[in-house]
Amino acid sequence: MTTILQDSKILVIGAGLIGTSIALGLKTHGVAVFLDDHDLDALETACTKSGAEKLIGNMKVDLVIVATPPSAVASVIRQVAKSYPDAVITDVASVKGSIFADLADEPVDVLRRIVGGHPMAGREVSGSAGAKANLFVDRPWVVIRNSVTDESAFELVNELALTLGAMPIQRSSDEHDKAVALISHTPQVVASVLASQLIGAPDSHVEMAGQGIRDTIRIAASDSRLWSEILASNSVEVVTRVNAVADALHDIAQALSLGETDKVASILAQGNLGQRRLPGKHGVGTQADATVLVRLADKPGELARLFAVAAKAEVNLEDVRIDHSLGRMTGLVELTVTKASATALESALQAEGFSVIA
Amino acid sequence: MTTILQDSKILVIGAGLIGTSIALGLKTHGVAVFLDDHDLDALETACTKSGAEKLIGNMKVDLVIVATPPSAVASVIRQVAKSYPDAVITDVASVKGSIFADLADEPVDVLRRIVGGHPMAGREVSGSAGAKANLFVDRPWVVIRNSVTDESAFELVNELALTLGAMPIQRSSDEHDKAVALISHTPQVVASVLASQLIGAPDSHVEMAGQGIRDTIRIAASDSRLWSEILASNSVEVVTRVNAVADALHDIAQALSLGETDKVASILAQGNLGQRRLPGKHGVGTQADATVLVRLADKPGELARLFAVAAKAEVNLEDVRIDHSLGRMTGLVELTVTKASATALESALQAEGFSVIA
Repeated sequence: MTTILQDSKILVIGAGLIGTSIALGLKTHGVAVFLDDHDLDALETACTKSGAEKLIGNMKVDLVIVATPPSAVASVIRQVAKSYPDAVITDVASVKGSIFADLADEPVDVLRRIVGGHPMAGREVSGSAGAKANLFVDRPWVVIRNSVTDESAFELVNELALTLGAMPIQRSSDEHDKAVALISHTPQVVASVLASQLIGAPDSHVEMAGQGIRDTIRIAASDSRLWSEILASNSVEVVTRVNAVADALHDIAQALSLGETDKVASILAQGNLGQRRLPGKHGVGTQADATVLVRLADKPGELARLFAVAAKAEVNLEDVRIDHSLGRMTGLVELTVTKASATALESALQAEGFSVIA
Repeated sequence: MTTILQDSKILVIGAGLIGTSIALGLKTHGVAVFLDDHDLDALETACTKSGAEKLIGNMKVDLVIVATPPSAVASVIRQVAKSYPDAVITDVASVKGSIFADLADEPVDVLRRIVGGHPMAGREVSGSAGAKANLFVDRPWVVIRNSVTDESAFELVNELALTLGAMPIQRSSDEHDKAVALISHTPQVVASVLASQLIGAPDSHVEMAGQGIRDTIRIAASDSRLWSEILASNSVEVVTRVNAVADALHDIAQALSLGETDKVASILAQGNLGQRRLPGKHGVGTQADATVLVRLADKPGELARLFAVAAKAEVNLEDVRIDHSLGRMTGLVELTVTKASATALESALQAEGFSVIA
């Protein structure tokens, strides 16, 4: 499928979640990958996990992917540029402007080989243990030129993203940093600060939590050390946005204490508009859909048996949601089907002993 | 199963999402239900949807459920107390203190029949069209006494919650209002304010949005008029909490602009702790689990076919996630299985022509 990358030797520096996932993904596609990390234990684990080889000595490589914590990226790129004078160099850091600024005094010869990269994928786990070859599938991978980046280097990094199943999108460094401040960094800060409000609350309050707050603070589980670095390297944009959110919160609090219900409603209505700007599925399905709610018995195999019954009844499932809010794997399953087939599905499930909740 | 409620006549006032869902749920359990609403069109629609009868004239009822917008609840309860001098009266409003305060001058005779209620269920849709008989299944339904509430009235409302599949939990009015300010009202305000930041952003920024912000602002889609009323009726608690979040956001913004990375990390770490207080499932499954990622072809029946193959292969699915972030019903499906059965599942799926993404 790919050609240039297939014949390349690739070095990944940094044996964390992203670096190991890249190595694993590339190995899966038959690309020659080497891994390096100053933490030799982490390196060993990541090599075992990914099947990549440990970097030994001074071999020639065509592409170096710097997947270290963001604060180390610029200095690692400087070293790499010297050690591998012909290699294209990219990184995976969530922020670009500060790295580009840091490298601005590098000779043009080096800058031509540098391509910024940001695969927008992650999990609320860190380290190579959570690595997955398919971590990047269908995710945006932002690819960023500096003012002198070679076209061939730029193409190679786009090909890297495509090989791993991601969608390469091209942005300027400034555009990228502004966008992630808005759609990633500020939500992280807001979710973390909101979640921290739960620390001192009595159990009897926290027990009442439902899916709303659960979704709102899900990303507050992210790695706090890594995120403090990410935020620090995009601080100008993030500070502006976070202060804007804080000011808007003070405004709505004031409107509430003054009893200005119309003003409160108008702020909430703006939230409606903002939420609708997100790409993708909205709302709860169309009017042509119906949902069937089933309670699974707490024993193995029930989920598979449920789907087998649906398949046998020749009912086309539009969607499946499993309710995890009660902390068990099994529990409530909501199946979305066409209105026309809901009754048939319910009958089929009941005939097989499932507890359909009308 | 239930006894007192089965023999009761119940009147639901308010033909919106919650009122119609209650009527529908009670009808499903064979309870005699009547509906009333000052909006006659809405009433007609809700009666058709729920199978409940329209209230006609002055019949005797045993339980009145006031499911009007929160700002009308206290005055409707006053009227109901006169029209139905023997009925138990409950409501479904998200806030209790202001309603109890409003009713404090009612005679003891009336107060004894009043039980506060708050079914903690909802959807990001309003109106009877979205009503579901099973809306309350497994959800908390807070049941609240005043100082003179009759034990029999209190029991009847607990039975109402149980009949509809909810988990009745008992709280004081003050405890309830403090808890919902924390776990429901403040998250709503924060999500709405964060979402409103997207309004003026360029498409090229919003296009980069992933699952993180999507979850964080999901509830920003809620009904802004209803929520402005809810917030107004719990304003003291909400104002305190929202201001605390705003102050904490200003603090982290200041720490960021001063380059105090340790302080930023410590605020984010507090978010980790707070997030972990939520009941339920955490993280991304155990080390004993593996995930299999499958891309479905965009044609009907693929999801059912997928589950049929898993069932035939006798693989026990631990969990299923369908990725909606790209705005299509079909797309990527992530199946969680035990590590031991992952390979068998992959082979079975591939043999049936599924695209397993390694």
